[in-house]
Amino acid sequence: MKMKSLENAFEDSLKDIYYAERQILKSLPKMIRAAQSPDLKEGLTKHREETEGQVERLEQVFEIIGKRAQGKTCPAINGILEEGAEIMEEYGKSPAIDAVLAAAGQAVEHYEIARYGTLCAWAAQLGYDEAIPLLQQTLEQEKAADEALTSAAEKANETAMAAE
Amino acid sequence: MKMKSLENAFEDSLKDIYYAERQILKSLPKMIRAAQSPDLKEGLTKHREETEGQVERLEQVFEIIGKRAQGKTCPAINGILEEGAEIMEEYGKSPAIDAVLAAAGQAVEHYEIARYGTLCAWAAQLGYDEAIPLLQQTLEQEKAADEALTSAAEKANETAMAAE
Repeated sequence: MKMKSLENAFEDSLKDIYYAERQILKSLPKMIRAAQSPDLKEGLTKHREETEGQVERLEQVFEIIGKRAQGKTCPAINGILEEGAEIMEEYGKSPAIDAVLAAAGQAVEHYEIARYGTLCAWAAQLGYDEAIPLLQQTLEQEKAADEALTSAAEKANETAMAAE
Repeated sequence: MKMKSLENAFEDSLKDIYYAERQILKSLPKMIRAAQSPDLKEGLTKHREETEGQVERLEQVFEIIGKRAQGKTCPAINGILEEGAEIMEEYGKSPAIDAVLAAAGQAVEHYEIARYGTLCAWAAQLGYDEAIPLLQQTLEQEKAADEALTSAAEKANETAMAAE
């Protein structure tokens, strides 16, 4: 078996999140259409724009480490997004749709928070000093998006209850 | 299409995490065997014990809402654990194995943090006051487990670098 280094782990993990970000970009328009409240629609739309910038920053990190930007199938994000697609189908225009959509969005954000946290630590350990602020900026955006979804969820939960 | 309420969402989400916790329980022994450092082995072993308590608390929450404890396939955790199994195979006894294992563990913890955060909010909204401390206790354990993995990861990253 080929021995793998932290350098390999960093590159593998970059490919994983590069694939993940592009899958998220494909899924967000469906989530935006499914959302009922203008607040949640607006929050998800803002996050779609941020995600485009996150993909570009990943391409810059690939350049810094001298590798071609390339994705690698990420079963984790596929599973998380599949679960999101299932609930959109199950909840349709039900009173609880925004509540479950916000929850699905938070599962996506938390996956990214875990991955970018790891990538920041590995970039520092490997001495990729130029990559750190790029990864850190995305990490902060994901944390802020999670917090925005918490606020959207609070309103959505009340709306769902009021309809019952 | 059947209209679904927040009550339905709470029950669906309980089934999702009940399935997820039991899959995690099955995966942890493999992760413990794959870990090289005694610290990481010990941390994962402690978390396996905690997870048993988390499953029991979920069974208590099912009782509180008057439903039979039952799992529902959760594609998200299946994807996250599949990714963990892939890296254990790819990294074997490589110098970076503990670093990638700790990262995989953090992806699991973050999924749970997202889900238990949602369940706590929904329990409060639905007035399941007895369920709140049970879910909150697990949420705090998952956050602490994530922090413990961050510390384990720091050591693992240094070990991986020293071996290069």
